[in-house]
Amino acid sequence: MRDFLPADVRKRNYVINIIKEVYESYGFEPLETPSVENLETLMGKYGDEGNQLVFKILKRGEKLDEALVTGGNASVNERGLSDLALRYDLTVPLARVVANNKNDLPKFFKRYQIQPVWRADRPARGRFREFYQCDVDCIGSESMVVEAEIISTACKILEELGFVNFIVKLNDRQLLFDILNACGIDGSQYPIALTAIDKLDKMSPDDVFSEMQNKGIGSANVIQLRNVYNKVYEAWQSGIEVNGVVLSQCVPNGKDPDLSSRVKMRLREIADLVGGNKVVVQPFLARGLSYYTGAILEIALQKSDEYPDFAGSLGGGGRYDGLIGMFGKEQIPACGFSLGLERILVVMEERGMFPPEIAESTPADVMVTIWSDETVADSLKLANELRAQGLRVTMYPQADKEDKQWKYANSIGVPWICTVNQEDIDEGVVSFQNLRTREKYREPVSKVSAKIKEQAA
Amino acid sequence: MRDFLPADVRKRNYVINIIKEVYESYGFEPLETPSVENLETLMGKYGDEGNQLVFKILKRGEKLDEALVTGGNASVNERGLSDLALRYDLTVPLARVVANNKNDLPKFFKRYQIQPVWRADRPARGRFREFYQCDVDCIGSESMVVEAEIISTACKILEELGFVNFIVKLNDRQLLFDILNACGIDGSQYPIALTAIDKLDKMSPDDVFSEMQNKGIGSANVIQLRNVYNKVYEAWQSGIEVNGVVLSQCVPNGKDPDLSSRVKMRLREIADLVGGNKVVVQPFLARGLSYYTGAILEIALQKSDEYPDFAGSLGGGGRYDGLIGMFGKEQIPACGFSLGLERILVVMEERGMFPPEIAESTPADVMVTIWSDETVADSLKLANELRAQGLRVTMYPQADKEDKQWKYANSIGVPWICTVNQEDIDEGVVSFQNLRTREKYREPVSKVSAKIKEQAA
Repeated sequence: MRDFLPADVRKRNYVINIIKEVYESYGFEPLETPSVENLETLMGKYGDEGNQLVFKILKRGEKLDEALVTGGNASVNERGLSDLALRYDLTVPLARVVANNKNDLPKFFKRYQIQPVWRADRPARGRFREFYQCDVDCIGSESMVVEAEIISTACKILEELGFVNFIVKLNDRQLLFDILNACGIDGSQYPIALTAIDKLDKMSPDDVFSEMQNKGIGSANVIQLRNVYNKVYEAWQSGIEVNGVVLSQCVPNGKDPDLSSRVKMRLREIADLVGGNKVVVQPFLARGLSYYTGAILEIALQKSDEYPDFAGSLGGGGRYDGLIGMFGKEQIPACGFSLGLERILVVMEERGMFPPEIAESTPADVMVTIWSDETVADSLKLANELRAQGLRVTMYPQADKEDKQWKYANSIGVPWICTVNQEDIDEGVVSFQNLRTREKYREPVSKVSAKIKEQAA
Repeated sequence: MRDFLPADVRKRNYVINIIKEVYESYGFEPLETPSVENLETLMGKYGDEGNQLVFKILKRGEKLDEALVTGGNASVNERGLSDLALRYDLTVPLARVVANNKNDLPKFFKRYQIQPVWRADRPARGRFREFYQCDVDCIGSESMVVEAEIISTACKILEELGFVNFIVKLNDRQLLFDILNACGIDGSQYPIALTAIDKLDKMSPDDVFSEMQNKGIGSANVIQLRNVYNKVYEAWQSGIEVNGVVLSQCVPNGKDPDLSSRVKMRLREIADLVGGNKVVVQPFLARGLSYYTGAILEIALQKSDEYPDFAGSLGGGGRYDGLIGMFGKEQIPACGFSLGLERILVVMEERGMFPPEIAESTPADVMVTIWSDETVADSLKLANELRAQGLRVTMYPQADKEDKQWKYANSIGVPWICTVNQEDIDEGVVSFQNLRTREKYREPVSKVSAKIKEQAA
């Protein structure tokens, strides 16, 4: 887990602020949930691997003693020793909040949430054990308008941050099941097939389809599935207007042709409502989490001539109409999207996408020096006066040699320095200098900020 | 631990933003540290009680198995089962960061940090197991200018938030030791005495001094100490200009009169540098944490006629010149202050101190309705155009009866509603209504935001 020094925090806040502004411009409201949830709230929501990756908090005091005693030797285990856990994502806590606060929330609850989550994973490039998710969700409607608005919101954020070359991969869990079904794969083998398909991003198709066969899916079925994959992949490679082609020509209808065509219509409707050419139906998109029930989506940066190494997914989401019902009596439809802050930051850093005022920010506009022990109070007074004029002002913290104070000002990159020596005090003026241009000024206190702002403009 | 619904988050962000702005106007830079620290980093820094209140994270996988096996039955315990812990305050992580990043940080590192901390405490009014601290620290200087600037910063924040009736209680750990010493209390009994003195805020002096006697401090010494306390308390009650009186007349010099008078001079210097009448020397202020070495301070709301129930401390801090050396080779002086966000919010809520735009905020400026399934795309397009005009726009998420859409708009408090029916589309206009005044308008899209902003002004 990482410390963020000031330059890092400023970049993180720049991105977070843009995300917040766009979310709010779409009418989403802020929610915050505690970092620590009851262990039982999180267990069983993310699949087996997820259960293991949840950070568990040790019981305390008497409860711990009890767990150690009643557990006996061999039966003292992870679940018995822990009662709380660190938040693993922002979706399950949202579902809990909605189920618990049904009467205090509007009929359609549109919320955003930007908070850290924790996973006991092996760290890798752009993947950390503590990382921020920036989620947006709409609760209470089954309409495709929700998917369309959520996709538009995410695209708008990436555009505001300066990303150009990205696409929204769109699929539906039911379409994927339908394809497996049409290839003769049995429902009991869906988890094996999905786990393999989810790796198409990182592994070659050869390896992915071999894995399926090795794990027990019949070779005839795997060949059929691979044929579908090849057709989809060819259409997908062929050009922009692929959605219709993919859905009508490449994807077979399953056992329930009505359902198949309803799901296909849903996907087309979402793509049409979003408009433009960002949304690409990708029938082999699987997503890892187990709670999705309908549309699933992922935003991915595309290879380009300028940036040939593929940066991959910047976020993902989907519809989870069954999750809230796990926490309350009522089943409530829901759909959401999560932007991965860390990945966005890594790419923006590599590509120099931060505006200069963020990339080169300084801790203050002005540093006030201390001339001598006797004039400390005058320096503090000057600093406060300049702050009242709207400047960010740092004090050199102690009486010191002049050159040391100047060296420090340069080391922190502050552009202006102010001195109050005895002569200045007697005459009621301030001496100040621009450390970049070296130009010097001597003016009444009331004119300092105007001069400095004039130079900056 | 608590969920924060949108209205709560807006209030929290309002306060956090003011705190950030003031910290930045004083030249402090943002730092963020991970929520999870190595257990060893936190142990032994907060005293025995602190050690117990740290939330400990269970070891994972093989490490956990190992701890359970090698521990045997009886010796499996808290420390063996845990390797990580949740952040308990923001000061110890700062000390670790400074020790580890000495070369990347300026000679004087002025940082602020606004993040949650966790304590496995019994929750009480305004006290929670997860809560935010808003810390400001200056590393690298022993000068009293640091204390003065930190006190000014904290006072400025409270003033900006609208607090009037608060004081800064100031003391020095060494002055407190000196008083105990002068009353004949042995160094080995200081911890007992300090623990009791720290309760003077919540318990009667009778109970506090009885506790000392019960815990083994000689009755003659306790009587002497109580006499000093009475003198100080009388002076403190008597009026504003008490600092000089307290320091010169009430507090005896200890065994080392030079040290006594140096410490007293330090306290006077700080009070003088801050100026005004907010700083009150309070020789019986103790503070709980064990790492303080010099000045200690606390900001407290005072009783007033309007608010007769005393609200107590809003934050505290002090000098800790010995802490950073525990993480590195070098001993580096440091001083800081921590504002308690939760306490500030509780008081502001009780006293109605939030400005109306925060207290009555709405999720959006406008809601766009959906006229029919056929015009969904037109509604989405209108919403995007209004966003481009700078409005926060929420969409009703599905085609629905008109009265349901209006009812929803009223329930979320959005002040304007826009309709795009077929006739409007054909004529290239939008119908919109102010839900508060009931006035209706029908204008080209390009004029909607101007009209709405005109009404709001």
